[in-house]
Amino acid sequence: MTAIILMHCPDRSGIVAKVTGFIHSNCGNIVALEQHVDRSMGRFFMRLKWDLENFMIPKEKIGDHFQTLIAAPYGMDFDLYFSEQKPRMAIFVSKMSHCLYDILSRWESGDWQVDIPIIISNHTEMQPIAERFGIPFHYLPVTKDNKAEQEIRQLTLLQRNDIDLIVLARYMQVLTNDFLQHYPNRVINIHHSFLPAFAGAKPYHAAYERGVKTIGATCHYVTGELDAGPIIEQDVIRVSHKDSLDTFIRKGKDLEKIVLSRGVFLHIQRKLLTYGNRTVVFG
Amino acid sequence: MTAIILMHCPDRSGIVAKVTGFIHSNCGNIVALEQHVDRSMGRFFMRLKWDLENFMIPKEKIGDHFQTLIAAPYGMDFDLYFSEQKPRMAIFVSKMSHCLYDILSRWESGDWQVDIPIIISNHTEMQPIAERFGIPFHYLPVTKDNKAEQEIRQLTLLQRNDIDLIVLARYMQVLTNDFLQHYPNRVINIHHSFLPAFAGAKPYHAAYERGVKTIGATCHYVTGELDAGPIIEQDVIRVSHKDSLDTFIRKGKDLEKIVLSRGVFLHIQRKLLTYGNRTVVFG
Amino acid sequence: MTAIILMHCPDRSGIVAKVTGFIHSNCGNIVALEQHVDRSMGRFFMRLKWDLENFMIPKEKIGDHFQTLIAAPYGMDFDLYFSEQKPRMAIFVSKMSHCLYDILSRWESGDWQVDIPIIISNHTEMQPIAERFGIPFHYLPVTKDNKAEQEIRQLTLLQRNDIDLIVLARYMQVLTNDFLQHYPNRVINIHHSFLPAFAGAKPYHAAYERGVKTIGATCHYVTGELDAGPIIEQDVIRVSHKDSLDTFIRKGKDLEKIVLSRGVFLHIQRKLLTYGNRTVVFG
Amino acid sequence: MTAIILMHCPDRSGIVAKVTGFIHSNCGNIVALEQHVDRSMGRFFMRLKWDLENFMIPKEKIGDHFQTLIAAPYGMDFDLYFSEQKPRMAIFVSKMSHCLYDILSRWESGDWQVDIPIIISNHTEMQPIAERFGIPFHYLPVTKDNKAEQEIRQLTLLQRNDIDLIVLARYMQVLTNDFLQHYPNRVINIHHSFLPAFAGAKPYHAAYERGVKTIGATCHYVTGELDAGPIIEQDVIRVSHKDSLDTFIRKGKDLEKIVLSRGVFLHIQRKLLTYGNRTVVFG
Repeated sequence: MTAIILMHCPDRSGIVAKVTGFIHSNCGNIVALEQHVDRSMGRFFMRLKWDLENFMIPKEKIGDHFQTLIAAPYGMDFDLYFSEQKPRMAIFVSKMSHCLYDILSRWESGDWQVDIPIIISNHTEMQPIAERFGIPFHYLPVTKDNKAEQEIRQLTLLQRNDIDLIVLARYMQVLTNDFLQHYPNRVINIHHSFLPAFAGAKPYHAAYERGVKTIGATCHYVTGELDAGPIIEQDVIRVSHKDSLDTFIRKGKDLEKIVLSRGVFLHIQRKLLTYGNRTVVFG
Repeated sequence: MTAIILMHCPDRSGIVAKVTGFIHSNCGNIVALEQHVDRSMGRFFMRLKWDLENFMIPKEKIGDHFQTLIAAPYGMDFDLYFSEQKPRMAIFVSKMSHCLYDILSRWESGDWQVDIPIIISNHTEMQPIAERFGIPFHYLPVTKDNKAEQEIRQLTLLQRNDIDLIVLARYMQVLTNDFLQHYPNRVINIHHSFLPAFAGAKPYHAAYERGVKTIGATCHYVTGELDAGPIIEQDVIRVSHKDSLDTFIRKGKDLEKIVLSRGVFLHIQRKLLTYGNRTVVFG
Repeated sequence: MTAIILMHCPDRSGIVAKVTGFIHSNCGNIVALEQHVDRSMGRFFMRLKWDLENFMIPKEKIGDHFQTLIAAPYGMDFDLYFSEQKPRMAIFVSKMSHCLYDILSRWESGDWQVDIPIIISNHTEMQPIAERFGIPFHYLPVTKDNKAEQEIRQLTLLQRNDIDLIVLARYMQVLTNDFLQHYPNRVINIHHSFLPAFAGAKPYHAAYERGVKTIGATCHYVTGELDAGPIIEQDVIRVSHKDSLDTFIRKGKDLEKIVLSRGVFLHIQRKLLTYGNRTVVFG
Repeated sequence: MTAIILMHCPDRSGIVAKVTGFIHSNCGNIVALEQHVDRSMGRFFMRLKWDLENFMIPKEKIGDHFQTLIAAPYGMDFDLYFSEQKPRMAIFVSKMSHCLYDILSRWESGDWQVDIPIIISNHTEMQPIAERFGIPFHYLPVTKDNKAEQEIRQLTLLQRNDIDLIVLARYMQVLTNDFLQHYPNRVINIHHSFLPAFAGAKPYHAAYERGVKTIGATCHYVTGELDAGPIIEQDVIRVSHKDSLDTFIRKGKDLEKIVLSRGVFLHIQRKLLTYGNRTVVFG
């Protein structure tokens, strides 16, 4: 079993020596270490993974010891994860299947170590797919009028299923701030443009109108401001005058599913740290 | 010697047969043909290149014949070029050398069949480079107050040198509408962002602030609206949290020079057609 | 309804005029035309798509007329397709699901206009997936000793199902020449390397050993020579010293499925022409 | 002033704590740290950069202390660099200017902190370029018969100029083992293919013959085995059936110069470690 700590604090001399000394002196064997200093913000970031086999501090006390001996004196925020805990992911989806299949096939093949106990949708089209994979599907249609109560139902389902990550796999509804505050940096969306270009609705239409030569997709954490949350991953694909709006959309689907899955996989591996409105993506 | 016609007109049945029949019946041998129909605009575009060796219509009468027999009845706009005419290019530059060297080295090596009779700058830093390549350098400093008169001097120089293409190789001045109307679709700029994201000043700063994972460059024709002209070529490069603003700028330079040169080379080869605010880029 | 002709013949002056004249004079409206001349081989290639609505030659006689009036005098090979005919595709698969899901989800969503009446495998692992999509699954285990008879069973199944395209979606068996001669340029494979680098078995192992900084995937038509058939599509993804053999394999899967699907989709759209050992890929 | 240590040794628990403790306890402030463990080889790699401002060990004694206290007990190989030492680079070139201009323009603009005291060529074509940049040019024509003596002249020039990095900017000669043993992991070449595909002479011809859909370039350290040294950087560009051998070559030039410059810049920044036949590329 291994443990991972993601941490950040004001930059200061000696942090790496302090943290690695803590692990080493307690007989932990570091298997991965990546650190980053953002000079413009004066902030230190680190991801540390170590083997717990001979570690002298019992698993359930590691957080407490680390808090007392390191996090507190350094003014550090940290999250501690253990390899035996699989992230529990909910998928929100509307009518399109490409991202859903891409995620479910990675999960089914064992490439992703996650549990997916629940799929939620505002439409019924994806229900047969959920059923084929044996995942409970909850149909919660959302209108302007019932949004508040449906979000309460969604939250209840999420809590009942111990969900700690929500993936919006082309879910065509905006989540409210009330909802989002329950899952800060825990809701991942795929936006079908190269943000900040073409934020909002119908990005392919806008890209087509503008005559761009490349279209993109952006995977980001969802915040209260539409399409403006911390960016996790982006990629692009070339288009030309030969492409119609239809082929923009079709080519874009390939991009959307790959970029979303890359971003979600980084989260699952505990490789993402968010600070301010940006992400540190450990390699 | 070969001729190239770039043409566009309302889409109609039989145009290709008509145009290729015209070339063939006059003993021209087509060496390249590419056509495109934009269904949403109902418009036909074609690039045709043929060998003039046995062509029965004398070179100087081709335009006239084509106008009478084909362009007029089909309501067609066309441009006719001959392989023996080298485009005459002026380079506008400010203080940075990366795009300038990239262009001049392509020209010097013979990879680009162009003449570059003149380099114009609002600063003196690039003068030694111009001199090393033996190209006349004109220093025309531009301020708010003298812009109108300096543009007149620029236009005089351009006309005196028979310039038909202006390349803004990181020229940090906005050209006025008065200037631009003399060179419609003849002024090519490189903007150091993935347009329409980060139009205007300081795009790398804005991209850095936004926390993007990819930065871009856009080569476009310059129109009266800033950074909004027809896009010729775009490309991107990955960045990460490890990149500072400085490395954004340094990595971006590689992109700027390659993307600008790709766009200019397409123009030189007569492979670009502009209609509305978009380009058709023949292969 | 539309018709598509893919043709190639020795290059000669006037072919485009002849062919487009044939379509136009019979009241066909050309909706797409792309031509290519390979100067080094002296060969002309063209893809032509036209609307049959007012076309004067009845559908069932088009091939005959075209053969007599154009193909014969020009020494032309051609294939004629009609939009109403959906290609009938068989999928061969072994134990990995990523390419299979990618193909099936495109088919199920209607993005691909194909029929998939049959999935053949030398293992049983993919049977549940086939069943979920309602596609008959045939388990034909292949050993050195039974290969010949199993190929006869495969051929029987293919013929019974009127298959005209075979997709090897990570099928880990080599097909014999006897088999392949029944489907020339009709068997598409994905090889998990950037061919011609790392042909043969275990390309990721070999790439890892060599310390490459990019891994690739190649979609190609299968011929008698292993991994040496005409290349349809290739792409790459960056790797680094941080990647292990396992992450090479995992990252490679994304590439394999996208590159295979791009190649198959080109075939389905009748955009591929093969001549010698190379492909012409119409846009 | 900063110092950089590049180190590698057998993997063992506690190395990071030991090294960072050494820096911290001597009042050094770490500004960059990147480590890597290659599990398949059981080897630890690290790049460490720290500020020397308050560092208690005098600059000229750092190597000695580090050797005694850390390198020796851990069986570590290390290289120590100081920011004030600029690498001294020699460029070897034949007849093509694209890589040469790319390098010289980066140096002239100050983007690269290097000295380039010498350019060596087996042809005279590049002499005017060297002269324009004020860099001594040495014409040393190489034939089968005089290779040994010309290499001695080259080595004399390199030693007289304190060269510590040799860049082969499309130098079309193979260097002998005798020559190379003087500069292990100090000679960087650009090969115009995606190695290991198309090693040896005329890679574009071979790529064209094979009908590939992507061409590449590979920057690598030169070893005694042709085109088989440790790979530093690779990239690719798409090609199609429309490309002739000439356009392969022209498009490839863009790739060659960018990929070579990326690789050389990594070396200049002391971000490259070589072990066995592979490189660790710190970010």
